[in-house]
Amino acid sequence: MAGLLLLAWQVKDKHCLVIGGGDVALSRVHHMIKAEAKITVITGSSKTHPELVQLHKEGKIYALLERDYNAGTDLTLYETLPSDILIKLQVFDIVSTEQFAEIDKIVSSQRFAVVCCCIDDYELSTKIYYQCKFSRLPVNIADKPPLCDFYFGSMYNQDNLQIMISTNGMLPRLLKLIKDNIARQFDGIDLNRAIENLGLLRSRLRGLVITQDDLKSIDLRMQWIKKVTDYFAIRQWSELDLSESIVDGIVKDFPKYPPTEYSWWEEITSNEKSK
Amino acid sequence: MAGLLLLAWQVKDKHCLVIGGGDVALSRVHHMIKAEAKITVITGSSKTHPELVQLHKEGKIYALLERDYNAGTDLTLYETLPSDILIKLQVFDIVSTEQFAEIDKIVSSQRFAVVCCCIDDYELSTKIYYQCKFSRLPVNIADKPPLCDFYFGSMYNQDNLQIMISTNGMLPRLLKLIKDNIARQFDGIDLNRAIENLGLLRSRLRGLVITQDDLKSIDLRMQWIKKVTDYFAIRQWSELDLSESIVDGIVKDFPKYPPTEYSWWEEITSNEKSK
Repeated sequence: MAGLLLLAWQVKDKHCLVIGGGDVALSRVHHMIKAEAKITVITGSSKTHPELVQLHKEGKIYALLERDYNAGTDLTLYETLPSDILIKLQVFDIVSTEQFAEIDKIVSSQRFAVVCCCIDDYELSTKIYYQCKFSRLPVNIADKPPLCDFYFGSMYNQDNLQIMISTNGMLPRLLKLIKDNIARQFDGIDLNRAIENLGLLRSRLRGLVITQDDLKSIDLRMQWIKKVTDYFAIRQWSELDLSESIVDGIVKDFPKYPPTEYSWWEEITSNEKSK
Repeated sequence: MAGLLLLAWQVKDKHCLVIGGGDVALSRVHHMIKAEAKITVITGSSKTHPELVQLHKEGKIYALLERDYNAGTDLTLYETLPSDILIKLQVFDIVSTEQFAEIDKIVSSQRFAVVCCCIDDYELSTKIYYQCKFSRLPVNIADKPPLCDFYFGSMYNQDNLQIMISTNGMLPRLLKLIKDNIARQFDGIDLNRAIENLGLLRSRLRGLVITQDDLKSIDLRMQWIKKVTDYFAIRQWSELDLSESIVDGIVKDFPKYPPTEYSWWEEITSNEKSK
């Protein structure tokens, strides 16, 4: 069974199109909001999910168009670039890098980065698929795997942490077990606190330890930070309650490894474990 | 900090282009091989990584072109579609669905699904970026985040299991801790055995329990399978050594839940845990 190419798409501030106004459309919108995309939803004539209306009110959906899809214009809704320029672009050699950069800015800000179609009308969604192919727009037609350039994998989300699981078409129940397993590892972990703790360690090290800024000294500092970071598991970093004075006690041992304050840290974490 | 849109791309048998012949190019190629893409590598004039040569010999790289990138023709290397058709396609309405399907088959099999550029020449890679934008090809310029439509996230791979971790630009060390955590969960897990065990349970249930094929009976069977599947963790399913007779002992209790044989299963797994 073929795998898939798992990629992280940069769609921040880029136009993304969702066609449909139901549950699936809403789930696509949620994905795109996390990525800070500029989302346009064309709901079609059936009832719009109330949460879509709410998200639009909150400014999280850029445009909520409660009307039918318009085959002639919707895929290029925000494009104002004259088509003769697009034709000229077929011949790369005659355009200079400066012209490229200028036109790119316009094209990137006007094109849809991805199109998701989540409607029940099979004939229309097939048409939309082909239109996207010709407009060279990456497209996902919900529930029609052959009509998809990409799929939404199984996701685990927690604040800044996004994990996508792809199992090459394994049993869905097995996928669920794998996802449960990951959730058990990260649910309840306060990543922001782990970031704070690690950040404090780094900044106090930079502040207190006066080293030369030659490559060798920087490398020594980096190696030490790496070892200290790896000493604890992610859950421990998220549970430690570090103050500047504790961190300074550890940092003063640099470049000794392990620092003498470690024994004390181990105490904190073993206390927390036994809770 | 903005998130990214994590997507699983279907590139099986689709042309993918890698420009570059070094370590980064090799790592891109490894990703694409997992996805069974049709990979073309244009190495440039510097030394080609020996593993690329080897992968080409093994037929895992479709074309290994040990020459410089040709700006005029390489991005459309396999495209034979006359450009007047492409121009006509700008106007969707005049093309019928049948024509769409026909032309799509040609376009899809000839276009690059993604382009990855992994060369040190900044000027050339910038040019390649803009060329891709105009050809509407999704592109990743290695080490140049602003010149990327997509990124290769941090990956955990194990046979059929692919896990991508994205942390919105968190500290790289934290990402490593998260990845280590996932690796600890899944390293050494024999997913194929878990699949076999679950498959055996399903097939024996279908074989032994004669139920009506009405929706209610199918639903009852599915609910029971779900509960039994969720009873064990993924590691346990991958460690159980189930024979048909053991499974039949469990299945005979259907639709009773939990089955009486469960106590016996618990014994196996607690034995394995205490090992």
